[in-house]
Amino acid sequence: MPSIDPARKKNLLSRLSRIEGQIRGISRMIEDEQYCIDVLNQISAARSALNSVGQIMLEGHIKGCVTDAIQHGVGDASIDELMDAIKKYTF
Amino acid sequence: MPSIDPARKKNLLSRLSRIEGQIRGISRMIEDEQYCIDVLNQISAARSALNSVGQIMLEGHIKGCVTDAIQHGVGDASIDELMDAIKKYTF
Amino acid sequence: MPSIDPARKKNLLSRLSRIEGQIRGISRMIEDEQYCIDVLNQISAARSALNSVGQIMLEGHIKGCVTDAIQHGVGDASIDELMDAIKKYTF
Amino acid sequence: MPSIDPARKKNLLSRLSRIEGQIRGISRMIEDEQYCIDVLNQISAARSALNSVGQIMLEGHIKGCVTDAIQHGVGDASIDELMDAIKKYTF
Repeated sequence: MPSIDPARKKNLLSRLSRIEGQIRGISRMIEDEQYCIDVLNQISAARSALNSVGQIMLEGHIKGCVTDAIQHGVGDASIDELMDAIKKYTF
Repeated sequence: MPSIDPARKKNLLSRLSRIEGQIRGISRMIEDEQYCIDVLNQISAARSALNSVGQIMLEGHIKGCVTDAIQHGVGDASIDELMDAIKKYTF
Repeated sequence: MPSIDPARKKNLLSRLSRIEGQIRGISRMIEDEQYCIDVLNQISAARSALNSVGQIMLEGHIKGCVTDAIQHGVGDASIDELMDAIKKYTF
Repeated sequence: MPSIDPARKKNLLSRLSRIEGQIRGISRMIEDEQYCIDVLNQISAARSALNSVGQIMLEGHIKGCVTDAIQHGVGDASIDELMDAIKKYTF
């Protein structure tokens, strides 16, 4: 499997660290009994941030592992596995 | 606005604390350059857990604030606000 | 159960008739073996249009049936049923 | 671009024809003012059926066009285009 690009790795880790902060912020909002709709909006923001991490991983996976598998003539198994991952996010 | 049920609050905080752990786990998987599909599955699991928190908040909001607004004859503004929140998650 | 507003009904039926046309258009694109990405974009457009119909129905349901149930003191069952419907779309 | 597999084409067209019937059924339910939750469930079913068509198209596209592009050393543009399509469905 091709190793992860260092810039991509740093980008992903910094996004995940921000998401951790968002989750802690949501906990504080609930502790403080802030208005539900404001909490829901923060949950939705954290969810979008997590989706972006998923997208970046997915793109890296297709450009790395899946491309590699196709170039070595073993793309089909890799694409089946990819489709399973996509379905978890999408449909 | 009706205050949040203590059991619901505790449930939400414990879920969020688990999600924080999941996010940290995903960071570690990326640090260790684990297989993309495994990372994607963990992201998808954290996303589902966050969605459950959203659902619980939404249900509490409808049973609390929205019900309250409707009973006081000011349901329409509350429902418009609710629809905006639902659209962020759904559509 | 409160009956549906005639303007809302007409709006919904006209949207659904357009969606039927979109679905037929997608069939023709596949018949003609048009480029997958163009077909995927049309499917995504039809899906958004269907989501809008879902949103309009949902809003009408909350403003009609659910509000009615809450005003008659039987909101909880109605909200549980509503949450099940929301989960199918959202989470 | 590789041409579409005849069995896949037939499968897609038969699914789309069923979806057209589902959409017509939803129109009739609204005409007859059936219960909102029942209509919402039918919309959700049509949406799932449309998502399945999207999945089949996506899988065919990856196994056909994208694989082809990668094998010809021009995978990157094809994967960027693919990611745009995936984002419309997923995130």
